[in-house]
Amino acid sequence: MQADLDRRRPGQSRITTPRKETDTCKILSGTYEGMTTGTPIHVFVPNTDQRGGDYTEMAKAYRPSHADLTYDLKYGVRSVQGGGRSSARETIGRVAAGALAKKILKLKSGVEILAFVSKVHQVVLPDDRVDYETVTLDQIESNICRCPDPEYADKMIAAIDKVRTEGNSIGGVVTCIARNVPRGLGTPVFDKLEALLAKAMLSLPASKGFEIGSGFAGTDLTGSEHNDEFYMDESGNVRTRTNRSGGVQGGISNGETIYFKVAFKPTATIGKKQNTVTRDHQDIELRTRGRHDPCVVPRAVPMVETMAALVLMDQLMAHSAQCEMFPLNLALQEPVGSANSTPVLAPDVA
Amino acid sequence: MQADLDRRRPGQSRITTPRKETDTCKILSGTYEGMTTGTPIHVFVPNTDQRGGDYTEMAKAYRPSHADLTYDLKYGVRSVQGGGRSSARETIGRVAAGALAKKILKLKSGVEILAFVSKVHQVVLPDDRVDYETVTLDQIESNICRCPDPEYADKMIAAIDKVRTEGNSIGGVVTCIARNVPRGLGTPVFDKLEALLAKAMLSLPASKGFEIGSGFAGTDLTGSEHNDEFYMDESGNVRTRTNRSGGVQGGISNGETIYFKVAFKPTATIGKKQNTVTRDHQDIELRTRGRHDPCVVPRAVPMVETMAALVLMDQLMAHSAQCEMFPLNLALQEPVGSANSTPVLAPDVA
Amino acid sequence: MQADLDRRRPGQSRITTPRKETDTCKILSGTYEGMTTGTPIHVFVPNTDQRGGDYTEMAKAYRPSHADLTYDLKYGVRSVQGGGRSSARETIGRVAAGALAKKILKLKSGVEILAFVSKVHQVVLPDDRVDYETVTLDQIESNICRCPDPEYADKMIAAIDKVRTEGNSIGGVVTCIARNVPRGLGTPVFDKLEALLAKAMLSLPASKGFEIGSGFAGTDLTGSEHNDEFYMDESGNVRTRTNRSGGVQGGISNGETIYFKVAFKPTATIGKKQNTVTRDHQDIELRTRGRHDPCVVPRAVPMVETMAALVLMDQLMAHSAQCEMFPLNLALQEPVGSANSTPVLAPDVA
Amino acid sequence: MQADLDRRRPGQSRITTPRKETDTCKILSGTYEGMTTGTPIHVFVPNTDQRGGDYTEMAKAYRPSHADLTYDLKYGVRSVQGGGRSSARETIGRVAAGALAKKILKLKSGVEILAFVSKVHQVVLPDDRVDYETVTLDQIESNICRCPDPEYADKMIAAIDKVRTEGNSIGGVVTCIARNVPRGLGTPVFDKLEALLAKAMLSLPASKGFEIGSGFAGTDLTGSEHNDEFYMDESGNVRTRTNRSGGVQGGISNGETIYFKVAFKPTATIGKKQNTVTRDHQDIELRTRGRHDPCVVPRAVPMVETMAALVLMDQLMAHSAQCEMFPLNLALQEPVGSANSTPVLAPDVA
Repeated sequence: MQADLDRRRPGQSRITTPRKETDTCKILSGTYEGMTTGTPIHVFVPNTDQRGGDYTEMAKAYRPSHADLTYDLKYGVRSVQGGGRSSARETIGRVAAGALAKKILKLKSGVEILAFVSKVHQVVLPDDRVDYETVTLDQIESNICRCPDPEYADKMIAAIDKVRTEGNSIGGVVTCIARNVPRGLGTPVFDKLEALLAKAMLSLPASKGFEIGSGFAGTDLTGSEHNDEFYMDESGNVRTRTNRSGGVQGGISNGETIYFKVAFKPTATIGKKQNTVTRDHQDIELRTRGRHDPCVVPRAVPMVETMAALVLMDQLMAHSAQCEMFPLNLALQEPVGSANSTPVLAPDVA
Repeated sequence: MQADLDRRRPGQSRITTPRKETDTCKILSGTYEGMTTGTPIHVFVPNTDQRGGDYTEMAKAYRPSHADLTYDLKYGVRSVQGGGRSSARETIGRVAAGALAKKILKLKSGVEILAFVSKVHQVVLPDDRVDYETVTLDQIESNICRCPDPEYADKMIAAIDKVRTEGNSIGGVVTCIARNVPRGLGTPVFDKLEALLAKAMLSLPASKGFEIGSGFAGTDLTGSEHNDEFYMDESGNVRTRTNRSGGVQGGISNGETIYFKVAFKPTATIGKKQNTVTRDHQDIELRTRGRHDPCVVPRAVPMVETMAALVLMDQLMAHSAQCEMFPLNLALQEPVGSANSTPVLAPDVA
Repeated sequence: MQADLDRRRPGQSRITTPRKETDTCKILSGTYEGMTTGTPIHVFVPNTDQRGGDYTEMAKAYRPSHADLTYDLKYGVRSVQGGGRSSARETIGRVAAGALAKKILKLKSGVEILAFVSKVHQVVLPDDRVDYETVTLDQIESNICRCPDPEYADKMIAAIDKVRTEGNSIGGVVTCIARNVPRGLGTPVFDKLEALLAKAMLSLPASKGFEIGSGFAGTDLTGSEHNDEFYMDESGNVRTRTNRSGGVQGGISNGETIYFKVAFKPTATIGKKQNTVTRDHQDIELRTRGRHDPCVVPRAVPMVETMAALVLMDQLMAHSAQCEMFPLNLALQEPVGSANSTPVLAPDVA
Repeated sequence: MQADLDRRRPGQSRITTPRKETDTCKILSGTYEGMTTGTPIHVFVPNTDQRGGDYTEMAKAYRPSHADLTYDLKYGVRSVQGGGRSSARETIGRVAAGALAKKILKLKSGVEILAFVSKVHQVVLPDDRVDYETVTLDQIESNICRCPDPEYADKMIAAIDKVRTEGNSIGGVVTCIARNVPRGLGTPVFDKLEALLAKAMLSLPASKGFEIGSGFAGTDLTGSEHNDEFYMDESGNVRTRTNRSGGVQGGISNGETIYFKVAFKPTATIGKKQNTVTRDHQDIELRTRGRHDPCVVPRAVPMVETMAALVLMDQLMAHSAQCEMFPLNLALQEPVGSANSTPVLAPDVA
């Protein structure tokens, strides 16, 4: 849990916000002698580096493209310090929970979830520079930008350094892959696996887009170019030769690697002067003093992973409830196929 | 309700599937003398043009990039005729419900939700050919492709006609706008308005991507280029000069027009020969005979609208529950009225 | 499904309402070749014996202790014919769903759910006239009152006949038992098994009370008299010598027989003259002409069973999701106990 | 909030457990300058008087009628100290939240929720010794037993004192009333108001029964005796002359005082010797040393109030969402106002 929190915390490198938070987590309840007890787990992560003074202007003026205005519109009251509920600090709770989900998914089914930075501003990592089947956590964590290709990582870091010194900000894209996901996760209609992933990703601060598999680019192809043909592999599993579906067909995982991309806009809080209005409706010029991230994308990597893990964990539980209560060999009177590299939740119908 | 169902139904034009369904809806319960009664509304839309024979091969072989395999993996059993639960016919229920939501949203707050086709295969409607603030339903419905620009509509229809005669298929993009959306809808963390919209859209058959506001293209900008500056308009409202946020900031609507795009892949069912495997694990060549859409995008337009309406309606209700129980100036600044014998929430019907 | 619907339907005997409904169910979707497909099941049961004229007065005057007034207060509009949503006909859907849940519970774990009438008006079936461990469906269904003791059944039927001829009504108590319920169902805090059962039972029309195990009478005992002492049975299971807990401890089933009682008030609709007011607020005398049940309790028996089955089914699924994903011998490194008469969901910790 | 927590805390009088806990609450987030911000409120109440040694036997042996066994059955692991999740300490969180709900209900609609002890062991407060329309909090809090009749309070206290010195325990009944509840709360079918209350009450530790209005005793009456006749009061409201319904008809509140009773069994943890088994399946004699309540009923009073408040608050919000969005006379009889540039749901903060 702490390892993932460290990947998320501010002040971890020069390309993140200079705020210093250790984000040390302490488990207050829900475990006993090193094991979870089945009850809620209380993780406590107090703030240590708050500077109220940083937020003086914000209390008065609405920061452009931030949540200040909309919170006031909705609730009529707002915690100003640190952005209150709109602070990205809320993702600490997500990352803590996701660390548990990742561990269970790994233990249960060998699921491996990895995210990395594939675009920063106008620096785009070409698709052929990363292999979704083999890329490792070590490669991703080898640089502060969390791009598995060192050459492109350097270009991205340079782009961030540039806007950092200017008091400006940039955004980018995080790609996430999930390998060894059991087949059968997701549901046919409203809770399609891609729908749940989309919601999870768009719930992250600053995210503006989601695409799975071929995504928006897939609309350039015809059906015969786009379809993933099936074949029998040597283990007797139905597999697809290509994976434009991104591991999901009809809302349900098919055992191929799931992959998707999430767009993050440039950080709204910048050091440059901007026109805005105050809470009492006066036009004003604002120059924010708070310490902010020049680019949230490297810190968004563990957040994307954690949300993917929570979605998959939920669906694994839901699948267990709906489809695994009866050993199928009893229900269907047939033997269950041998477990192999791609885990099989329910057997193929022979 | 029927008007929207007619926009969704198969056989409405030569660029949709030739299956003939009138999709005539009948309300079986939930209304009384022309008014909803507050209880669930049962809308019944029976099939009329089923041809079992069309599905003979599908019963045996898995159609590439369709839900056939994943359903068998998950449930071990599957309704073959018409694709069962994976048939896009399930969207009838969505469109019927959405018609009600649209009406309430319009009546309550003047909300106007319009979707249109902005890309078919490689034909892209340029952003400057449509004005989100003024485009009308009539313009959209003026052609069978539902693109508000006649010139581009013709190009798109030509593209669909081409693949139709080839037994192939193509996809595209639907843009959706929602005008006059009340400020304050959505919540700060998991149920951000954009997250709910993303889930709703990715739950539609064949959708592969979602982006709101500046979306993926917004990652090309810096923060100072991307931020929407605030100003006071003549009515005393806080407005933004630009709208790269897409009408949502921090998960909550800000009163500007909401707009987003949804990518739909090429229809998986095509008339061309494809390699695949059978349910009993034999490699096979499949040529599907079923009547399918060469391009789902024109029929997806009412589906996108309906899902947007359902999300906004839910959030309007949630906002009413959390934030409108107390008129703020009353609750906070005035004494509460004397308790009288029996408070009345809804008036007696005189 | 039809068998349970027949136990619920009106007109099944002289002590129920004389309305004639066959309540014939037709499954419109959700099954394929005799198996459920994992998608929602649409069961259609149309009305056949509606007499609009019966409801003329009800359209104008509020029937005492009926839902007429409160529906108008809440919604301002109300379907008058047959009571609309407040008609006990809505329990058809419950009974249809419960029939499936019962079947799965039986197949999966040998769960047996039986309800019977234990009180009608002032006729009380003594506790020692029925053995919760051995009473059978045949005994219960041997008479039209559904009381497993023929002598008391006759007394109850006589009581109902008396009020029936007077145009009056009476209530009573239904006792429900669930045998072979797996140990471990329910959760520690808000979703305690008894809480879920209580909600399910109080959601039935005309129910006014619920008690599990020793219930209200248990408050007459001291802790040393009330506690259920544990012992080891010959199969190596922890059992209780008494069962005042009613099969549930701390919100979770302990494998003993679950039993509880539900109080049903006298039917509100009676043939006698009553004072009331009209919808336009005039005092009036009302004599209802509609055909009503002199005592709902015999027909409530399948309703109570069905709600118990739905609760247990839900909890079986929830337990599967939370606690059965890992075979515990893997998680805990210990052998799982042998399955025996009382099913074991999770092993005792040895 | 602290006032209600003080009514719940252990050690408040000689008839409660001698454990000394101040239960001092501290709000860590969710408020700003004395106002709630619309985000979750974190209330922190740490333990201060833990004595691990008290629980040594419990770690080994299952206490009869306690949750020890069922937790092990369900989870295979259990926090032994203080009972873990099964400790009644979890009700602190309920009482803290309920304090807020009570305040909002009072402020919004003048709702007044009061509970009191109406039975302890075999001491029953006669119905005619308390008037549901006029009983006050002061009367209830005038003695440590929380029975509004001083004479019966003394008898109850004597009964508790007796078992306390014997190391035994007793249970009882809490009656709860809610006055000035708005008309229209609750829903017609599954979420009937009485169903929600029943669930809430049976989720409280040690509760075994719930009855609303006439409850189980109502089954002794005929329909003509039981029905609550309607009349017009001088304010023009439809009222009932009697209130056997308990303020709820057809699942929806009718504006009369809601009242219900909850049965609490004798505390399971007692000082007397009992037969039980150990975790490793050995028969054993257990004498518990922990400090326990001789009778939980006086401390259950604020718990019952809090759960009633949470149910009513939820339903007030749900009613607002479904039924108050349109003022009925406006929606149904008047033209809808012209849409103006940007509808405002909540006012700007001036």
